[in-house]
Amino acid sequence: MSLKLYELVGIDASRPFSPYCWRTRMALAHKGLSAESLPWRFTEKSALAPHGSEKVPVLLHDDKPVVDSWTIANHLEDSFPDRPSLFGGEGGRAMARFINAFGDIAIVGGIFPLIVADIPNNLAENDAAYFRKSREARFGGKSLEEVMASRDTGVVAFRKSLEVMRQTLKKQPFIGRDAPNYADYIVFGGFQWARVVSPFKLLEADDPVYAWREKLLDAFDGMARKSPGFAV
Amino acid sequence: MSLKLYELVGIDASRPFSPYCWRTRMALAHKGLSAESLPWRFTEKSALAPHGSEKVPVLLHDDKPVVDSWTIANHLEDSFPDRPSLFGGEGGRAMARFINAFGDIAIVGGIFPLIVADIPNNLAENDAAYFRKSREARFGGKSLEEVMASRDTGVVAFRKSLEVMRQTLKKQPFIGRDAPNYADYIVFGGFQWARVVSPFKLLEADDPVYAWREKLLDAFDGMARKSPGFAV
Repeated sequence: MSLKLYELVGIDASRPFSPYCWRTRMALAHKGLSAESLPWRFTEKSALAPHGSEKVPVLLHDDKPVVDSWTIANHLEDSFPDRPSLFGGEGGRAMARFINAFGDIAIVGGIFPLIVADIPNNLAENDAAYFRKSREARFGGKSLEEVMASRDTGVVAFRKSLEVMRQTLKKQPFIGRDAPNYADYIVFGGFQWARVVSPFKLLEADDPVYAWREKLLDAFDGMARKSPGFAV
Repeated sequence: MSLKLYELVGIDASRPFSPYCWRTRMALAHKGLSAESLPWRFTEKSALAPHGSEKVPVLLHDDKPVVDSWTIANHLEDSFPDRPSLFGGEGGRAMARFINAFGDIAIVGGIFPLIVADIPNNLAENDAAYFRKSREARFGGKSLEEVMASRDTGVVAFRKSLEVMRQTLKKQPFIGRDAPNYADYIVFGGFQWARVVSPFKLLEADDPVYAWREKLLDAFDGMARKSPGFAV
């Protein structure tokens, strides 16, 4: 059995940073699986084209491509049913869709303007130019620096948007309750992305979300913490 | 086996309106159970005191009180394991905690300022006075009318905050995927609360959340739709 994972990197090939790739990395670790890392950069579209994707993560399972972090999580759950469950049953799989949307919108979408101009610092020149052009278009032509200029106030709104997480963590240590599961990895992926590419402080140290993030940084023998990143 | 449910009502005892009681009503129906309704009003604290609660819902299961909508859902799931599952397994039960927090904060908390001054219209004089005094204190002394004055702009932000629901419903018809489960009832409870007490239009007819709400209004032979309320 062979597993290979295309992961987004910049100048440093050992520093994967996509929030979606981190969801997959954590999911693989949860299943006790390891995949060969295939470093991939923004401008290397041609490397993914044969696998029917333009974006990472792409998992090659015995050379068969599985595209998109959600699809990969489901594929791992179904292909390795005897290993620890990512969803804890069909109800969890269904509700994780909702948490996936929360992860995309509130976490990745919320963090993006707070770190966006730090990202090109991690990229080679051609990737940085691609990133800047495509992302500035998304922000209606604003420069990345303009988007990020208000992050000191933006981060206050972002922290407020985490109240749903905070209320959950008052009741149980993980979204998966006693131990993390894919719901936690969905949210954590966004924080790990930020940690790898930006020194910006997203969370106050007394925030229950901070304590939760610490536990996920420590999970799987400190896999996420050992991956190069900023102290957060 | 006997089930009785204390439910919040106002002038009309057949018009229960608490979002949390509606979570429980839907959960009971999902389990194929019916409970005798014990109408309860804001100022009737003494009726609940013997059951160790100040708030509804309180379920009496063979006269033993079960307090709080979340605890009741878990109690029903565990007491009636052979009936349709509310959570779809332990992963769903864990993740439903997160959705419960979303329901409390984004849905109930988001709707509250949009309908708050309509609520006393449904209450007898003493209950209306209690409601007004206690809720105005929560809003730092602002009158309920002042809080609600900006609802035409507030509802735009509320609709935007439903994007997580909308993204989920693009992928599957219910949060519980093919059929509704307790995750859906958590969110629906807030919409049904609003529908019972206020004519204010929360959702545009072309919103996928509107279509989802329609399906829940129709669930269990139209139980929620048949309960008196405004056309929404």
